Amino acid sequence: MKIDVALIHYPVCNKNKEIIGSAVTNLNLHDIARVSRTYAVDTFYVVTPFADQKELVREIIDHWQTGHGSTYNLDRKEAFSIIELVDDLEALYAATKKKWGEKPLTLATCAQKRPNQIGYAELRETLRKETPVLVLFGTASGMTQDLFEQVDAVLPPLGSVGRYNHLSVRSAVSIILDRLLGT
Amino acid sequence: MKIDVALIHYPVCNKNKEIIGSAVTNLNLHDIARVSRTYAVDTFYVVTPFADQKELVREIIDHWQTGHGSTYNLDRKEAFSIIELVDDLEALYAATKKKWGEKPLTLATCAQKRPNQIGYAELRETLRKETPVLVLFGTASGMTQDLFEQVDAVLPPLGSVGRYNHLSVRSAVSIILDRLLGT
Repeated sequence: MKIDVALIHYPVCNKNKEIIGSAVTNLNLHDIARVSRTYAVDTFYVVTPFADQKELVREIIDHWQTGHGSTYNLDRKEAFSIIELVDDLEALYAATKKKWGEKPLTLATCAQKRPNQIGYAELRETLRKETPVLVLFGTASGMTQDLFEQVDAVLPPLGSVGRYNHLSVRSAVSIILDRLLGT
Repeated sequence: MKIDVALIHYPVCNKNKEIIGSAVTNLNLHDIARVSRTYAVDTFYVVTPFADQKELVREIIDHWQTGHGSTYNLDRKEAFSIIELVDDLEALYAATKKKWGEKPLTLATCAQKRPNQIGYAELRETLRKETPVLVLFGTASGMTQDLFEQVDAVLPPLGSVGRYNHLSVRSAVSIILDRLLGT
């Protein structure tokens, strides 16, 4: 399948719906790389324009790719091999378009129901037809209104019967990859 | 649905398959409480016999239930309200049996395929019939052989087409709850 995942640190919203840049979380890199590798995602893009945050991500990747971690835990080395760091959404769109030779179908994710939805079953079918797909995940309190208007469609909220819906982004990525790619 | 989740810190295996006790991880409490609440799990049991670890869990729960966190983030307060701390498997089995008035169907989870499997669709059906179900998750390198022999059945491994399967326990809980309870 031609599928990539992107974790966005800027632009995202804070609790008050103001646009902010969020900090990279070490465990997001681990959990999302592991689940992405387990579900055969091609690349896990980490999107941040901040120099100190990029340096931190590079140090963590290096630890697991070439440093002590690379011999201590080979499984983690393999998971980290699919992470790529990009500055912003433009660089993300350019990298995925270049890789696949066409613009991927680009999906946003959100804890609330939004217009312009595509169902999980329909997207599974799209993937089976070898259409490239890029799934965006926001950090902090989620994506900006601008971004929802840029994407091709939005995936439906996750959850069960109740009204409570507050998943970590790690949980959301895991469940969505299983819904799209699980066997 | 009558479903509980338990995160086991003792007894579990280390990388060399020796039996150990693992440390509680703050983010496991957050992520698993949040996904459990989102999927309407009744109780998220944290199983550890170690006094210092129980103290740590209590401090974290108190922060979000009655401390600063309880007013800062009401959603997190609600997620943490379903956590219960138990000393060991015996206490876990006693608590769930007492709560439901009968011994729950008890399932282990594992990254490898094992005998005595029950499928996700079958277990969804069992839950729909109001049978109480307890799903056990191991920390560190997973559950002990003894525990696999004690349970009623084991859930199939997660993942997609590839041979790589190294999910965090946070991802595994999230995906399994979605498979059993997702709408």
